[in-house]
Amino acid sequence: MQAKRPSESRTVMTDMVLPSETNPINNLFGGELLARMDRAASIAARRHSRRITVTASVNHVAFNESVPVGSVLTVEAVVSRAFRTSMEVYIDVWMEDRFSGERSKANEAIYTFVAVDENGRPTEVPPLEPENEQEKQRYVGALRRKQLSLVLAGKMNPQEATELKALFT
Amino acid sequence: MQAKRPSESRTVMTDMVLPSETNPINNLFGGELLARMDRAASIAARRHSRRITVTASVNHVAFNESVPVGSVLTVEAVVSRAFRTSMEVYIDVWMEDRFSGERSKANEAIYTFVAVDENGRPTEVPPLEPENEQEKQRYVGALRRKQLSLVLAGKMNPQEATELKALFT
Amino acid sequence: MQAKRPSESRTVMTDMVLPSETNPINNLFGGELLARMDRAASIAARRHSRRITVTASVNHVAFNESVPVGSVLTVEAVVSRAFRTSMEVYIDVWMEDRFSGERSKANEAIYTFVAVDENGRPTEVPPLEPENEQEKQRYVGALRRKQLSLVLAGKMNPQEATELKALFT
Amino acid sequence: MQAKRPSESRTVMTDMVLPSETNPINNLFGGELLARMDRAASIAARRHSRRITVTASVNHVAFNESVPVGSVLTVEAVVSRAFRTSMEVYIDVWMEDRFSGERSKANEAIYTFVAVDENGRPTEVPPLEPENEQEKQRYVGALRRKQLSLVLAGKMNPQEATELKALFT
Amino acid sequence: MQAKRPSESRTVMTDMVLPSETNPINNLFGGELLARMDRAASIAARRHSRRITVTASVNHVAFNESVPVGSVLTVEAVVSRAFRTSMEVYIDVWMEDRFSGERSKANEAIYTFVAVDENGRPTEVPPLEPENEQEKQRYVGALRRKQLSLVLAGKMNPQEATELKALFT
Amino acid sequence: MQAKRPSESRTVMTDMVLPSETNPINNLFGGELLARMDRAASIAARRHSRRITVTASVNHVAFNESVPVGSVLTVEAVVSRAFRTSMEVYIDVWMEDRFSGERSKANEAIYTFVAVDENGRPTEVPPLEPENEQEKQRYVGALRRKQLSLVLAGKMNPQEATELKALFT
Repeated sequence: MQAKRPSESRTVMTDMVLPSETNPINNLFGGELLARMDRAASIAARRHSRRITVTASVNHVAFNESVPVGSVLTVEAVVSRAFRTSMEVYIDVWMEDRFSGERSKANEAIYTFVAVDENGRPTEVPPLEPENEQEKQRYVGALRRKQLSLVLAGKMNPQEATELKALFT
Repeated sequence: MQAKRPSESRTVMTDMVLPSETNPINNLFGGELLARMDRAASIAARRHSRRITVTASVNHVAFNESVPVGSVLTVEAVVSRAFRTSMEVYIDVWMEDRFSGERSKANEAIYTFVAVDENGRPTEVPPLEPENEQEKQRYVGALRRKQLSLVLAGKMNPQEATELKALFT
Repeated sequence: MQAKRPSESRTVMTDMVLPSETNPINNLFGGELLARMDRAASIAARRHSRRITVTASVNHVAFNESVPVGSVLTVEAVVSRAFRTSMEVYIDVWMEDRFSGERSKANEAIYTFVAVDENGRPTEVPPLEPENEQEKQRYVGALRRKQLSLVLAGKMNPQEATELKALFT
Repeated sequence: MQAKRPSESRTVMTDMVLPSETNPINNLFGGELLARMDRAASIAARRHSRRITVTASVNHVAFNESVPVGSVLTVEAVVSRAFRTSMEVYIDVWMEDRFSGERSKANEAIYTFVAVDENGRPTEVPPLEPENEQEKQRYVGALRRKQLSLVLAGKMNPQEATELKALFT
Repeated sequence: MQAKRPSESRTVMTDMVLPSETNPINNLFGGELLARMDRAASIAARRHSRRITVTASVNHVAFNESVPVGSVLTVEAVVSRAFRTSMEVYIDVWMEDRFSGERSKANEAIYTFVAVDENGRPTEVPPLEPENEQEKQRYVGALRRKQLSLVLAGKMNPQEATELKALFT
Repeated sequence: MQAKRPSESRTVMTDMVLPSETNPINNLFGGELLARMDRAASIAARRHSRRITVTASVNHVAFNESVPVGSVLTVEAVVSRAFRTSMEVYIDVWMEDRFSGERSKANEAIYTFVAVDENGRPTEVPPLEPENEQEKQRYVGALRRKQLSLVLAGKMNPQEATELKALFT
C-alpha cells in the first residue's frame, strides 16, 4: 500500500458549546469533549484508511482548561502513525473566547483506531509518512506510547518495553 | 472531615444502546461510552464530596469488547481514593446480550474529578476508607496511577515517581 | 418455565437532570420523567422475560414532588408480577439534592409490558416468585390493578371486577 | 375570570417518527409518546391559563396500537375542564400510514396540569365552557376522573367518591 | 391522477422553544427554525403525494422577528402548487408570547419538494386545486417563483423568464 | 474599524451523517443541512465581527445532491462581504463517500447575519477586504444579492435595483 501524508487525514471540527452540554458552573462536560474528539479522530482515521474505523484506546487525557458555554471549540485530528491495522490519531483542541475571540489551547489527546471490514475484522492500512518536524516527533513518540499501552493492558512485560524503560532508568 | 466508604458513592447507570449511538457496524461509538462513563463517575464523585465536580483526567482506556446496538449497558462508578481536593473514580461497564441476557464485562476505566465551589475553586473532600479486598487494592493502586498522571503531564520527574519506577527496575 | 425472583429484573438508572429537560421554573418536565421510567421499566421487563418488550399501559401517575435542574435522579424498576405474556413493573424514583445530597422519594409509577417475538406477537414469560414483604404486597395488588385496567379499557364489566368492587362496597 | 372555550386551547403537534425513537421491532417507544403528549398538553394548558403549567398527573394510558417508524403522528390536546388552579387536558393521537396515508386513532390520554406563578405557587385559572357534545361529555366525566385520582392518591375515601362509587354498585 | 385540495395537505406543528435551541441572546437559532419548517413542509408534501418526499430547494427566507426562548411556535405548512413531480409548499410561522399569549407572525417561507420512489427516482404527483383567494394567489405566484429558481440555478436564461422579467421592465 | 480578510473568518465543520438525521431513503434531511450551515456560518460571522450574530436571511438554496447516511460532510463558511452591521457568508459543502473517500461538492448556500449587542441592537462590523479571485467575485456579487433580498422583502422597488435589473434587460 502506498504511504499517505498526515495532511491527507487532517480533520477540523468547529462548533459552539451549547448550554445543554455544560455542567453546573457552565463549562463543557469532560465526557462531551471526549465524545467530540472521538468523532473527529474517527473521521481522520477513516480518511487515512478508507475503511470503517473503531476506537481501540484513548491515552491518558488531562483537562487543564475549562471551556465556558458560548465558546467556539475547534477540534483538529490528524493520524500521527500507522501500524499494521491500527492508527494513532493526535487531537489538538482550541477554544475561542466568545467576546475577545482570543484563541487558546484547550486540550490535547491521543486516540488509537483499528480499521475493520464490514464484519468487524481488522484490515491493513497504508503506512504514514510524516513531513514536518512536529509530525516526525509525534511519529517517533507513537512507538513509546504503544508500548505503554501494551504494558498497561498487561500484554507486555514492563521489562521488555525498551523505549519506555529508558525513561525511568 | 469524616471519612466515607466507597459504597456511599456507588452509582449505577443502566440504559439501552440506541441506533443513533452506533457506528456503521452497529456497535456503540467509543466516544459515546466515554461520555456515559463521565456522567456516572461525576455523580459518584459528587456523592462522595457533596460538591460540584469537574473532570480532571481520564486514565488510559482500552476498548476490547464491542457493544452491539440493542444491548443493555450498565455503568457502575465508585470513588476508589480521595486526595485533598480530588477523587479517583473506578468505572466498571457490563453489557447484557439482547437475546440471551448473558452478562459480560465490556470495559473498565479510571477518571479523576476535582471538587469545586460555585466559582470553580478546588475545595477539600472527605477521605475514603476502603472496606473490602477489591476496594483496598484499588485504593493502593491509586497512588501509583497519580504518579503516572503527573509524569505524563510533565509535572513530576520520572526519577522521583518511586511507585512507578519500581515497576520497571 | 422456571419462576424468577424480583431481584433478577431489578434495574437502576441514575442520571442528572439537565437544563434542556426542564420547564420555565427549572423543574424536570413530567413527560421526560415518564420517558425515563419507561426506559428503565422496559429493561426490567426484558431482564425478566429475555424477550423484546413493548409498553402496554401506564397506571395513573401523580407528580407530587418537583425535581429541580441539577438533581441526581435514580429510577429503580422491578417486575412486580408476571401474567401469561405480560408483566407489571413497579418503578420508584428518588432524587438527591444537588448540595445537601439529601435523598427523597420523587415519584412512583406502575407500567405494564408485553413480551413479543420478532414479529411483534405476544409470547409467554416466566412466572414471578416474590420474596420479601414489599414484593408480596405488590404481587397481590397487581391483580386488582389489572382489573382496574380492564374496566377502564372497557374490557371488563365493573360488576365482575371482584377485587376492585370490594374497595367501594 | 372570564370563561374560555375548548377551541381556544386546542393544540396540534404533527411530527414524524424517527428511527432514534423506536424499539427493536421499529415501533415508537411508549415513553416517547408519553413525552410528546405531555408537551402538547402542557401547551394547551398554557393557552387556557396564560400561566406556566406543570404536569400534576397522568391518567391510566393504554397502548393498543403500535406506531411504526416513518409514520406521521398527530397529537391533538385540548383542555376538557378547568378546576380552581388545575386543568384536565384530553389528548387524541392519530397516525398516518407512511405509504397509504390512511389515518387511524393511535392513542388517547388524559393529563392534569396545575397553573403556577414564577415561584411555583398554584394560581387560579379561568373556567371552561364546553360547546359541542363531545366537549360536554368530557367535561362531565372530568369530575369522576378527579375523584378516582384522589382515591388512588389516598386523598379521598372511596366511600365518599360518589360519582365513582355509582359505577360499581 | 385526481386533483387534491390544499386543505388535504395542511400540516400544523406546534412546539415550545427550548433553551438548547437558542443563541446567546436567548432567541431561537435561525437554523433550528429552518429545520422545523423543513419537517413540517415535508409532511405536507407527503400528505399531498403519498410518496417519500425530499427537499429540492428553499426560497429566500428573511428572519425579521426574533423568537424568544419559552415561546410557543406554530409552523403551518400547506402545498401551494403541484408540478409534474415536485410540489411548492408555503409555510407560515406564528409565535405566542409566553406570558400574554399574544399571537404574531414570526416568519414565512417557501420550500419545494420532489416525490420519489424507494430508489430515489422522481414520481408523478396529483395536481393541486386551490379553493380560497389566498390559495389561488399563491398558486399563481408559484410559477414566477419556479422561474426565479431556475434562473438562480443557471438552468434558465433570465431573458426567457417571462413572468419574472415583467417585474423589472 | 480595521478591515479583515476572508481567511480570518473561515470556519470548517466536519462531521458524520448519522441515521437519526436521515429520511426514509437514508439521505440527510434538507432541514438538518440548513441547520448545520447556519451554525458554521454563524461562527464565521462571529469571527469576523467579534459580536453575537443572528441569522438575518438565507438566499435561495437548491439541494441537487443527496448526502447518504455514513458520509463525512464538510461545511466551510467564510464571510464574503461586510455591510454596516450585516455580513454575507458564503457556505460550501463537501461530502466524502464512505468507502471510496471520493470528495464532491454537495451544496452551496449564502446566509446573511447581523451583529448585535447584548440587548439585540445591531452594531457596526469591520469591512471585508477580499484577496483572491474567488473572494473578489463573491464580494462584487454580494451587492446584487442584497438588492434581490430587498426586492423580495418588499423593501426596494424592483425598478431601483440597478444591479439586478441589468440581468434581465
